[in-house]
Amino acid sequence: MSFKLLRKEGRARRGTFKTPHGTINTPVFMNVGTQAAIKGGLSSEDLETIGCQVELSNTYHLHLRPGQELIKEAGGLHSFMDWKGPILTDSGGFQIFSLAKLRKITEEGVSFNSHIDGAKIFMSPEDSIRIQSSLGSDIAMAFDECVEIPSPRKYVEASCQRTLRWLYRCKEEMLRQKDKPDTVNPGQVLFGINQGANYKDLRIRHMEQIAELDLDGYAVGGLSVGETAEEMYEILDAVVPVMPEDKPRYLMGVGTPENIVEGIYRGIDFFDCVLPARNGRHGKLYTSFGVLNIKNEKYKNDFRPIDPDCGCPVCKRYSRAYLRHLFKAGEILALRHGVIHNLYYYNSLLEQIRNALDKGEYEAFRKSFYKDRQENKTDSNI
Amino acid sequence: MSFKLLRKEGRARRGTFKTPHGTINTPVFMNVGTQAAIKGGLSSEDLETIGCQVELSNTYHLHLRPGQELIKEAGGLHSFMDWKGPILTDSGGFQIFSLAKLRKITEEGVSFNSHIDGAKIFMSPEDSIRIQSSLGSDIAMAFDECVEIPSPRKYVEASCQRTLRWLYRCKEEMLRQKDKPDTVNPGQVLFGINQGANYKDLRIRHMEQIAELDLDGYAVGGLSVGETAEEMYEILDAVVPVMPEDKPRYLMGVGTPENIVEGIYRGIDFFDCVLPARNGRHGKLYTSFGVLNIKNEKYKNDFRPIDPDCGCPVCKRYSRAYLRHLFKAGEILALRHGVIHNLYYYNSLLEQIRNALDKGEYEAFRKSFYKDRQENKTDSNI
Repeated sequence: MSFKLLRKEGRARRGTFKTPHGTINTPVFMNVGTQAAIKGGLSSEDLETIGCQVELSNTYHLHLRPGQELIKEAGGLHSFMDWKGPILTDSGGFQIFSLAKLRKITEEGVSFNSHIDGAKIFMSPEDSIRIQSSLGSDIAMAFDECVEIPSPRKYVEASCQRTLRWLYRCKEEMLRQKDKPDTVNPGQVLFGINQGANYKDLRIRHMEQIAELDLDGYAVGGLSVGETAEEMYEILDAVVPVMPEDKPRYLMGVGTPENIVEGIYRGIDFFDCVLPARNGRHGKLYTSFGVLNIKNEKYKNDFRPIDPDCGCPVCKRYSRAYLRHLFKAGEILALRHGVIHNLYYYNSLLEQIRNALDKGEYEAFRKSFYKDRQENKTDSNI
Repeated sequence: MSFKLLRKEGRARRGTFKTPHGTINTPVFMNVGTQAAIKGGLSSEDLETIGCQVELSNTYHLHLRPGQELIKEAGGLHSFMDWKGPILTDSGGFQIFSLAKLRKITEEGVSFNSHIDGAKIFMSPEDSIRIQSSLGSDIAMAFDECVEIPSPRKYVEASCQRTLRWLYRCKEEMLRQKDKPDTVNPGQVLFGINQGANYKDLRIRHMEQIAELDLDGYAVGGLSVGETAEEMYEILDAVVPVMPEDKPRYLMGVGTPENIVEGIYRGIDFFDCVLPARNGRHGKLYTSFGVLNIKNEKYKNDFRPIDPDCGCPVCKRYSRAYLRHLFKAGEILALRHGVIHNLYYYNSLLEQIRNALDKGEYEAFRKSFYKDRQENKTDSNI
């Protein structure tokens, strides 16, 4: 077994997950490098510096540009972007349903038009796995339909069953790919994805069905797509208890620091989200006491670091006043510093959480996390 | 004396220039951080990594945004951007004559409209020096009129004499500023700027006149503004011999690697130019064998580094294929890598030149520099 559960506190879990490119300490926040690069100008050495454990890239984007053949020729994503740690690739499912145009779903797969040049593309579950196999990620995700919330119950029910049939096809295709002599990453594993919109009973039934495939991990997909945080927590409360105890659990595309604290509280091990990098590029910077909007006038001559308690490369050297100037002057360095700080904040938050779990003090950590935020004034809530 | 001439070979010089923030080894290429940041997302730690000796910022830009008062409050530019090495600031003269709108020159100074918001601004020689004093740079430049080439002789003659009168005012204002108890950098020095367009006799006369002020260094300004390289070299051949032997000589805004090799050959010690950073952002990358346009189709699956002989952080880890992908995918990381590589190339070229001068082998270096470029095929000449 790749996953080892080290300790539990309530439903919160502390574990490790072994991959061909190193062992992941969970709970973990994966840093999103959609097109084999973190937006905002971060390189692989930056990922090392900010404590990234897992890099996450996108099958949909890399299929369109530069194409998986090129990355396979480079020796896989690890070699292409020179990132030596674990990589997870998503299946393209979410992007096809959020970015691509004119999509049409059939039993065989999805046809859609590229959001870049409108090119007509067809992707089946087998195609997605073949692409991810060429990318050589350590964790591949199943190809699913990401159903909108809200959607009619009948549609969600049928979609879940199709996603289940697709999952069997994904599993078989992965076995075929791994048997090939030129496979990029023979140790690649597949995670299944739970869907079911906000219908708890459909979520539970689908989770039970996909658990039967005995995959290496399971994700909860299709959340954080418009529903409230409370609705999301209710779905987690319903579905997580049905997820295999001995497999890692991944809450896809989530979320705010609060969402992560609550997800871990409910038994989630893996997270990813574009939010910290996107907020960083907009000057919304995370601190232990809340979120600063660094463009605000009040930081004009504030020569303190973003967060005096932060150990990131930006807080060690630069002031709020300097960062505000960079944003106001339109310097690319502003984006870079914003993203470095925010991803460091997320990676470091997860490290603090792991430390708390190690000591059996997660409940205390969670309380103090909220207390710090309530006691301090912040610029905005995001 | 701050300047020490260590060695000469023909007219080429190897020297050192002492500043309050460290000793500069000359010849030197200064890295341009117009708005207190290198364009393309490079931070002060990056400048350290790529071997930058001197950072150059712009009085015009910093006056408009964020304003010199703020930077003085931060403790000066060194503290504001956390760059511990030497800083040179230009006077704003060149930007007023190339960027600003509706400018009107009088004996007192120049009124112009900001290129950012059209705000009406007046800058006198005293203003420029007061701003540079607040910025606390190690080397301040005199406020001059940068005359276009070609311009009527009569106009150039009158302009040079006004620039001379302005230089006396700059020198006096700097003495006043340095006497103040709250001066940011008491060791700041002033360089005068030679003008005269492409009239050699006017250049020579102006140079003789400004040399009488016994400043700490002298620059040749108003070149690389449209004249051919040959015309520029002819002006240098005329004016450099009139420049004080015991003072550093700075050729402003120049230029290509070839221009620098030729400038040093003609006795120049300091250079600066936005070209390597701008080219880097456009994917035009310098190598010992010429310039690569990394966006070219032929680099699609070229897994070699930009330059196998380059020791920069980009060439150590990333391939041409990966860089091309980053440019094609519109990733900010592309710009960053392009600029890091190109500035490293320039800084390292100057280091090779200093090493050659140390050994009395500059003439051999210059020959082999051209030979390497002729023997190899390159994508373009820039």
